[in-house]
Amino acid sequence: MKLSVHQYGKARVRIARVQRDGERHTIHEADVRVMLSGDFASSYLTDDNSKVVPTDTMKNTVNVLALTELGAEIERFGLALGRHFVGKYPQVEQCEVTLSGKTWQRIGEHAHSFTGNDASRTWARVTTTRAGTTVSAGVRDFLVLKTTSSGFAGFPRCEFTTLPETNDRIFSTLISATWDFTSEPASYTAPRERIMSAMLGVFAENFSPSVQVTLAQMGEAALAAVPEIARIHLALPNKHYLLVNLASFGRMNANEVFTPTDEPHGQIEATIER
Amino acid sequence: MKLSVHQYGKARVRIARVQRDGERHTIHEADVRVMLSGDFASSYLTDDNSKVVPTDTMKNTVNVLALTELGAEIERFGLALGRHFVGKYPQVEQCEVTLSGKTWQRIGEHAHSFTGNDASRTWARVTTTRAGTTVSAGVRDFLVLKTTSSGFAGFPRCEFTTLPETNDRIFSTLISATWDFTSEPASYTAPRERIMSAMLGVFAENFSPSVQVTLAQMGEAALAAVPEIARIHLALPNKHYLLVNLASFGRMNANEVFTPTDEPHGQIEATIER
Amino acid sequence: MKLSVHQYGKARVRIARVQRDGERHTIHEADVRVMLSGDFASSYLTDDNSKVVPTDTMKNTVNVLALTELGAEIERFGLALGRHFVGKYPQVEQCEVTLSGKTWQRIGEHAHSFTGNDASRTWARVTTTRAGTTVSAGVRDFLVLKTTSSGFAGFPRCEFTTLPETNDRIFSTLISATWDFTSEPASYTAPRERIMSAMLGVFAENFSPSVQVTLAQMGEAALAAVPEIARIHLALPNKHYLLVNLASFGRMNANEVFTPTDEPHGQIEATIER
Amino acid sequence: MKLSVHQYGKARVRIARVQRDGERHTIHEADVRVMLSGDFASSYLTDDNSKVVPTDTMKNTVNVLALTELGAEIERFGLALGRHFVGKYPQVEQCEVTLSGKTWQRIGEHAHSFTGNDASRTWARVTTTRAGTTVSAGVRDFLVLKTTSSGFAGFPRCEFTTLPETNDRIFSTLISATWDFTSEPASYTAPRERIMSAMLGVFAENFSPSVQVTLAQMGEAALAAVPEIARIHLALPNKHYLLVNLASFGRMNANEVFTPTDEPHGQIEATIER
Repeated sequence: MKLSVHQYGKARVRIARVQRDGERHTIHEADVRVMLSGDFASSYLTDDNSKVVPTDTMKNTVNVLALTELGAEIERFGLALGRHFVGKYPQVEQCEVTLSGKTWQRIGEHAHSFTGNDASRTWARVTTTRAGTTVSAGVRDFLVLKTTSSGFAGFPRCEFTTLPETNDRIFSTLISATWDFTSEPASYTAPRERIMSAMLGVFAENFSPSVQVTLAQMGEAALAAVPEIARIHLALPNKHYLLVNLASFGRMNANEVFTPTDEPHGQIEATIER
Repeated sequence: MKLSVHQYGKARVRIARVQRDGERHTIHEADVRVMLSGDFASSYLTDDNSKVVPTDTMKNTVNVLALTELGAEIERFGLALGRHFVGKYPQVEQCEVTLSGKTWQRIGEHAHSFTGNDASRTWARVTTTRAGTTVSAGVRDFLVLKTTSSGFAGFPRCEFTTLPETNDRIFSTLISATWDFTSEPASYTAPRERIMSAMLGVFAENFSPSVQVTLAQMGEAALAAVPEIARIHLALPNKHYLLVNLASFGRMNANEVFTPTDEPHGQIEATIER
Repeated sequence: MKLSVHQYGKARVRIARVQRDGERHTIHEADVRVMLSGDFASSYLTDDNSKVVPTDTMKNTVNVLALTELGAEIERFGLALGRHFVGKYPQVEQCEVTLSGKTWQRIGEHAHSFTGNDASRTWARVTTTRAGTTVSAGVRDFLVLKTTSSGFAGFPRCEFTTLPETNDRIFSTLISATWDFTSEPASYTAPRERIMSAMLGVFAENFSPSVQVTLAQMGEAALAAVPEIARIHLALPNKHYLLVNLASFGRMNANEVFTPTDEPHGQIEATIER
Repeated sequence: MKLSVHQYGKARVRIARVQRDGERHTIHEADVRVMLSGDFASSYLTDDNSKVVPTDTMKNTVNVLALTELGAEIERFGLALGRHFVGKYPQVEQCEVTLSGKTWQRIGEHAHSFTGNDASRTWARVTTTRAGTTVSAGVRDFLVLKTTSSGFAGFPRCEFTTLPETNDRIFSTLISATWDFTSEPASYTAPRERIMSAMLGVFAENFSPSVQVTLAQMGEAALAAVPEIARIHLALPNKHYLLVNLASFGRMNANEVFTPTDEPHGQIEATIER
């Protein structure tokens, strides 16, 4: 028996920090996962726990470091956590921190009151080793829909094909995007905003002949918008809106009434690089 | 054996309608439940299905009526469905339609592209009988948070009490509100906006000595904002943000770092009437 | 402005108790909600919290009482909690305890190791006032399916009906049942087992001409099985298995291949009384 | 701009098949994901869809092949689907089929009635290329708990450590296991049963000095039980049951009362190979 790949840590560590600038408060909230790997084989093969940093200690560390390090950019909190774990424990060769950030929006311009209905999440993964650090950032579950300017035609047909061709359909997808930085940018927020804006522009403006083409165009726009990233990975479910057949009821349905569905769904995934 | 209370219908009927005003499209989307009650006892007590409008027919009816009746106000779609079922089938004495509406927001001012990240839902229940119709409307799961201007003190203590008093805590709740119309308003959207604005104003501006007081003030503000409603029911979970104890680590935590939790949660529910 | 109906409490209080009989352990686990109502209007209308038993104290009470009162019958834990809150605080006029129990099953006959894959939950609601106590018990989300011996025919057709008649379909439902005790039984477990066994027998053995008939027969069998209950409420979603149309592919589908769906679903609800 | 890694397909295709052996029926149900990769770059970079097998066709194919190929072993359905897609379309270089199987259990020995409350899922991934096929199988979310015979001590302490050492705690985990076959076994069911039985035996019988040791022992037992597998990957969340502090209430808590929690949780992942 041989232990090949292994890592351990703490997941779903929820944390919030309130920052006070006089009367004006800001709140930052994230869900954090810390995974360590390195010289831990003995902890699996014997009952020697002398190298096993408790996952409870990891949670405590997230809490303590949040006091000074959790801010508007979840990427920086990941960097601080990675530095801490790799720097402190010789047995840790790699620390992978995955962060999912929640967005709070002010009620009007109120100093300390917020709404939190944005279901999308900011996302980052910071991987720290003794050799250096890599930062990926992104977004999860950002829902978009266009009511037209999307089609799908010219595809191969076989005996199992029943899908009609169309040049006018609803296209809805839940964007999950991951971009990899090649160097540390001055800000993680500015690239995030430029990438999202570029991708939403493509989604809104361009005719989509397939999810694939839209994915590639969105990725290309993201790369053009932010020179500091090397590549972007996009995973786009095709959340089908099925045209309801109203012919049985003597009604036309000129792309007016649809049944939204979650299952089954198309799934298109690709990485676009420079 | 006796059959006492009974109803049946179709739930989770999802429907979307695209309306076209030239190039400019609008999308309305809802999740609909239709429940019928009336002279249906024979269908439980014998194998006679001659009165049982199939739930599949209800789904078809939602689809067909959506073509002309689903618009910006889910209340009106509920009215149309209720009128249909009570008017068409003599065995139906009551039709209760419950609707949960999804909000889509334009990307910039784009004519046909939208984002859909708002996790809160509009809500309505329309109950139609031969005697008339009642309309309740509301909102579900509208998340708010204030970082200060909330406390809880002066409560009774017993041997099972460990909670410290505080005059400065985070207060976060997921608003579920239901308001009952006494008469049909010119618009259902305007009251909805006035009620939400009034309630958010109270939540943001007023010091909260307890969830109870904030609930009552929000309800009172809603009643003041919209004369057409007779009462409002509010259900406010207290989504606790637990102050992290950093004393063990030699740190002060002056209401800066918190653990957000979903369970357990407080739950405060009340109806405010004129 | 007037406060009409109000209650407050703590929800999603999770609790587990390990009981040791020598080497042989038993584990009981439940999710508890405690809601109080009574003389609490002042807490909504003024900032006087002097009557507001903190919901944190309710959680602590669940924890402390679990030490001696949480056992195989969640009903009894609800009774103990209700007695406590109504007995201790004069302002409490009613305590409603809702409990959802988790089932753990021994691995073989092992003394302290268990599996917990049963997704159904036992359920109880105990309502205590100074006038007395009512106990409802039940089950939530108990999933059953029969592959045949179910049909639906003889229903009315209108211009919105497309459903074909059938005398052979899959019938699957997620049983939620609530039975009300008229007197305190010697055991809550024995009635639970007799009711579930009676209902599963009906579901398995009887041809179902409609969900309605099966519901009524299940309810009648439950009443016959347990004299201590006055009535039973059943809520049965019809979890449709849609016959896949394989004709386009030159295949017969003699009730062999189906698409399981969660939405939309039929919903049939009724109370059966003596 | 360059397209590097890409795949597409259909996810959450739900399918059920009823097999009839005279009066005795069996039901098999799965949730299937089919992902294709290969010569598809043109579909991202141009609006040429001539190679894009529609994901709707994939869904139809799942439906049609289920008629003859979906049985007790989800692995074999994955093999049939992989063979189909790689064999039929020259542009497909790899087909990855992921299957999640639902377990139905007979009510007593009834011929056609079942309960479906098992929340764990069987799991398989079949990857087919022109060079050959690899089959991984496993289980997802199989919940176990032991009330004792688990500890955690001898771990390193730092200024962020507050966890006390213990040699008696509850250990609960949701087993996700993936085993890789080196050759096609006569049956996929027999290895599945032997692996699960071996792992549950280790979990139940052995003292656990850490999740890590239990993971390794479970993996080793699985490898010993089934010679046809090369390795097994285990992902074990540590679903903490927190000992409730009852000292404030003057009560001892000798490992009797616990708060079950879902977040945060430990997470231990490793692969055990021969």
